[in-house]
Amino acid sequence: MKRRIYLQMRTWEDARQAFFERVQPSRYDRTEIIPVKEVLGRVTAEPIFARLSSPHYHSAAMDGIALAAQVTFGAAEDRPRQLRVGEEAFFVDTGDSLPAGTDAVVMIEEVHQVDAQTVEIMRAASPWQHVRMVGEDLVASELILPQGHRITSTDLGALLAGGVLEVPVKQRPRIAVIPTGDEVIPPEEALARGPRTGEIVDVNSTILGGLIEEAGGECVPYPIVRDDPQALKEAVRAASGDGCDVIVINAGSSAGSEDYTPSIVEELGEVLVHGVAIMPGKPTLLGVVGERPIVGVPGYTVSAVISCDLFLKPLIAAMLGTAAPQRESITVVPTRRLPSKLGVEEFVRARVGRVGERIVATPLPRGAGTITSLTRADAVIRIPRLLEGIEEGEETEAELRVEKDAIEHTVVIIGSHDLALDLLASRVKRGDPSLRLSSNHVGSLEGIIALKKGYAHMAGSHLLEPASGEYNLPYIQKYLGEIPVRIIHLAYRQQGFILLQGNPRGIRGLSDLVRDGVRFINRQRGSGTRVLFDYLMEKEGIDPTRITGYQGEEFTHLGVAVAIDSGRADVGLGIYGAAKALGLDFVPIAQERYDLIIPHEHFDDPRVQKVIEVLRSEEFQDEIEGLGGYDASRMGKEMTV
Amino acid sequence: MKRRIYLQMRTWEDARQAFFERVQPSRYDRTEIIPVKEVLGRVTAEPIFARLSSPHYHSAAMDGIALAAQVTFGAAEDRPRQLRVGEEAFFVDTGDSLPAGTDAVVMIEEVHQVDAQTVEIMRAASPWQHVRMVGEDLVASELILPQGHRITSTDLGALLAGGVLEVPVKQRPRIAVIPTGDEVIPPEEALARGPRTGEIVDVNSTILGGLIEEAGGECVPYPIVRDDPQALKEAVRAASGDGCDVIVINAGSSAGSEDYTPSIVEELGEVLVHGVAIMPGKPTLLGVVGERPIVGVPGYTVSAVISCDLFLKPLIAAMLGTAAPQRESITVVPTRRLPSKLGVEEFVRARVGRVGERIVATPLPRGAGTITSLTRADAVIRIPRLLEGIEEGEETEAELRVEKDAIEHTVVIIGSHDLALDLLASRVKRGDPSLRLSSNHVGSLEGIIALKKGYAHMAGSHLLEPASGEYNLPYIQKYLGEIPVRIIHLAYRQQGFILLQGNPRGIRGLSDLVRDGVRFINRQRGSGTRVLFDYLMEKEGIDPTRITGYQGEEFTHLGVAVAIDSGRADVGLGIYGAAKALGLDFVPIAQERYDLIIPHEHFDDPRVQKVIEVLRSEEFQDEIEGLGGYDASRMGKEMTV
Repeated sequence: MKRRIYLQMRTWEDARQAFFERVQPSRYDRTEIIPVKEVLGRVTAEPIFARLSSPHYHSAAMDGIALAAQVTFGAAEDRPRQLRVGEEAFFVDTGDSLPAGTDAVVMIEEVHQVDAQTVEIMRAASPWQHVRMVGEDLVASELILPQGHRITSTDLGALLAGGVLEVPVKQRPRIAVIPTGDEVIPPEEALARGPRTGEIVDVNSTILGGLIEEAGGECVPYPIVRDDPQALKEAVRAASGDGCDVIVINAGSSAGSEDYTPSIVEELGEVLVHGVAIMPGKPTLLGVVGERPIVGVPGYTVSAVISCDLFLKPLIAAMLGTAAPQRESITVVPTRRLPSKLGVEEFVRARVGRVGERIVATPLPRGAGTITSLTRADAVIRIPRLLEGIEEGEETEAELRVEKDAIEHTVVIIGSHDLALDLLASRVKRGDPSLRLSSNHVGSLEGIIALKKGYAHMAGSHLLEPASGEYNLPYIQKYLGEIPVRIIHLAYRQQGFILLQGNPRGIRGLSDLVRDGVRFINRQRGSGTRVLFDYLMEKEGIDPTRITGYQGEEFTHLGVAVAIDSGRADVGLGIYGAAKALGLDFVPIAQERYDLIIPHEHFDDPRVQKVIEVLRSEEFQDEIEGLGGYDASRMGKEMTV
Repeated sequence: MKRRIYLQMRTWEDARQAFFERVQPSRYDRTEIIPVKEVLGRVTAEPIFARLSSPHYHSAAMDGIALAAQVTFGAAEDRPRQLRVGEEAFFVDTGDSLPAGTDAVVMIEEVHQVDAQTVEIMRAASPWQHVRMVGEDLVASELILPQGHRITSTDLGALLAGGVLEVPVKQRPRIAVIPTGDEVIPPEEALARGPRTGEIVDVNSTILGGLIEEAGGECVPYPIVRDDPQALKEAVRAASGDGCDVIVINAGSSAGSEDYTPSIVEELGEVLVHGVAIMPGKPTLLGVVGERPIVGVPGYTVSAVISCDLFLKPLIAAMLGTAAPQRESITVVPTRRLPSKLGVEEFVRARVGRVGERIVATPLPRGAGTITSLTRADAVIRIPRLLEGIEEGEETEAELRVEKDAIEHTVVIIGSHDLALDLLASRVKRGDPSLRLSSNHVGSLEGIIALKKGYAHMAGSHLLEPASGEYNLPYIQKYLGEIPVRIIHLAYRQQGFILLQGNPRGIRGLSDLVRDGVRFINRQRGSGTRVLFDYLMEKEGIDPTRITGYQGEEFTHLGVAVAIDSGRADVGLGIYGAAKALGLDFVPIAQERYDLIIPHEHFDDPRVQKVIEVLRSEEFQDEIEGLGGYDASRMGKEMTV
């Protein structure tokens, strides 16, 4: 039996330094000379000097007449000077070369044409006025681009202007990507026939390929290698033989019974680092095989991306002699406490948006396998090694992963999840592509509390007060107190039992839930659905502790549907859309009101108004009703507070 | 004769609004469905929903044993529970599917193997612990990407994980680029044989092509059209026939005698805007031809790029339904006064770097034809329409064109130009790719004054005091007074006459400069070379006003060399390197000392120290001596203040 051992569990800074000192990325230095047309985005291998001056001749900088300045000396309003066209004065357009003997241009506006052969001017010209002189932009021999510069579109123009048709650039480092694992299947194959239980779709190769290309490397993808040390050894040798400069193995660098990467690197070369004090990304391996850098990238996608950010991308940048791209840092306020393990630097993905004076960051799921936490992340909060976490509301630094501007164009909605919010986000974006609706699902009550704390522009809520039978208002009064709000109605929606198709357990009503062998899946406390469920049980006089699964909590309607679809439970309460999405059965139980609660201070914000505008459009109302399970007829109406 | 008339000279905001209202870019809406492998950087045409859940089966989140949690209930340190391997407990690696009947994983660290058939645990497991449940990341039907989203590398992974192999994306708008002008020649042709006088190398097509592709469009390049209204009309018709969505004509939208674009657009469609209140970029034309947007882009490269930034790129973004990329704004302090015309918004390119607390911006040449002002620009200062300029030292906003981080890694050197500084910049970057040396050429004296104002980390100077024959020190005492500095020597260098090859005028010494017909080209006041020249003339007792051309001022050594090479002058004083660069003759006149002056407060700055380190390397000293005209033997030595 194996134990999970990370010899030398290092900080990523130490790990990178040890790795770079050993592999000496600057030794990688191969130049290729390629035509200007192909150099966009490439990195100059040498300083590039101009071969020609630009302009390469004295030219008119204005439309007008070219002349020798000295023939104009003494001209004035009362002493106009007449000049013969074609002898002393020559019509020129901007860019035309100066005729021999001329050294100045008089603007067309200041020229009076007397007849076909004669023009008249009222003012003396000074030598070289309105003339672009040779080399005004670039002088032959002058530096156009320094070494180590990534070439942009405008650089292409400067190169051509300087007479450079071919450019010495750094060859792109060739990065072999070797996916490993008996259970790993190429996406095309897995998705064409549907992936089987136990199969892992190889999404990492595609992501790593994209990240490598963005960093300026050339990705050389290899076929998936089975969990067989011999096969992996052969793949590493093949990649070396193919002239790859760096070898990436994904994954097998952990310490499971089939993780062969460490022993094989040990055998073929040297393991420099195995295990880094980061989360996600811990089981990263750094080493060399025959002087070639080798990176063992963890299997979980988020771990793989973070490992790639910290080690592979800087390695490629160093090989190219460029600075590794730095993400901008911003100060954010997390909307939840973020506990973290001492001694490990944690990378928490978050959605961010400006609410009032602060930039609020709502953390996304922290699991290493949640790819969506990467695609949805606007920023990454780094929790330092020496902290046990970051408190809710405590200012902290985050690395921005979107344009900074996007933060200012974000409407933050926290609260209950509803499928309509996803569609609303798309509609809003269609109307104003720069506007983002960032919705974060924490349940109705948490949403209202988030408003109180100033963490959101609006909250989505469907909280029933059992005593009065009223929606939302009692909670607003209780939790928001002094904070004035307005309530915009989203929709009435059907809540009901979500069940396997055909309702094999024959569940028709609430009393069926206490039957033997019926497994229920519950929603989290504070969610509107949970409040509704508890209310219904009380009304029926059923003791909820008699229900199997009452303690289990899911956070979204879809979560409930999945629990049923995957056999974890037989029944749960949720909205029709969630049942429909997974092809499950639905037994209506109650209708409820879903509203958006918006504090006064944000109500007139033009961004918020744009969202309300969409809610009031017939188009969007039709779209929501089309989903089934909604009555959207009063969508966008203001409810009395 | 034509007059320069801009009907409706509009602000760019008005112009863009009028243009977009007429062409309705959102009407452009074509979708194509392409494989995930090809969608990087493309824009989603619809919201993309998951087809599969991810994970699609319950799987182990840790290496360990899978079991049914209930068999562990009651286990404790003093009451270990033994389980039969293969019946009650199953070894699993991370990612393995849970065997039937199991609902929890116990980490391998907490498992004690008793024998081959038996394991023992000391603690009860809770249901679903260390299990990645179906749909934990993505639930079938869940939103993966909203509409109008530009797809990143990690998005590719999320798409594959969600079972999406093909993605509906917006078709890239096809943008025809039609270069015009009798004098315009394709770069390959012009550069292969050397461009002739009057020929303009078509650099704009390449730049526009790059900018269009970056913006998400597809550039369809057309051959150069002569200045013939019929030919231009045919080209516009051809581009329409080829299914191009936008037509760009470059240039001919000004008001010169051969600017046919306005009349042709008028004839074939409608001119919406002709002339925009911006500089550079004024002669921009916006219109429609058969409902197709048409943009007449000015001929000067800087004007073309700014026009493209303001109109063409936002048009492409709007067609794609995405937000136009926003450049980040920073507060800078210009090192020079920037006068500007009232009523026109001016775009001044500048180099920026942080010096102490402020970000200083040194303006680059403002001409519309200076491509290098674009390639060298770190930021663009916008001078608003209603200002007559911005004062030196006055805080103002600038749009950043480099990574924000680069500002913090910039050593700003202002002062005299020397070719060695370009090579120094490349060397510095080779040692530390993130470090930039930004050198700005204003002459020695202005450099020292810049230090006093806090505009630079160091100044390059070779200022002779005629009275004492001493270099730099007297000026430092006079102009920097209380500011303590240290002086690091760069090199001794040869100043001499730069002359046409073969020295046709037979100029051997200073007295030859007053000969009839000898045209001199001078350097600007405050430059070290000018001070040296005046000193030499005085020593020889020559009245400089007798020298033809004494009033003309060039700002760099290369500028002087170009003036001679292009026939504007016969002789000038400059360094050997400038003569050599253009293949000119050189008659040595004097040796002078070139130093770097560094205020104490910046001396220990690690960035500055890295620059000094390079100066002290033998490698770099050899490189500079290899240029000829330098004595670098004491390079990097500190001179006594």
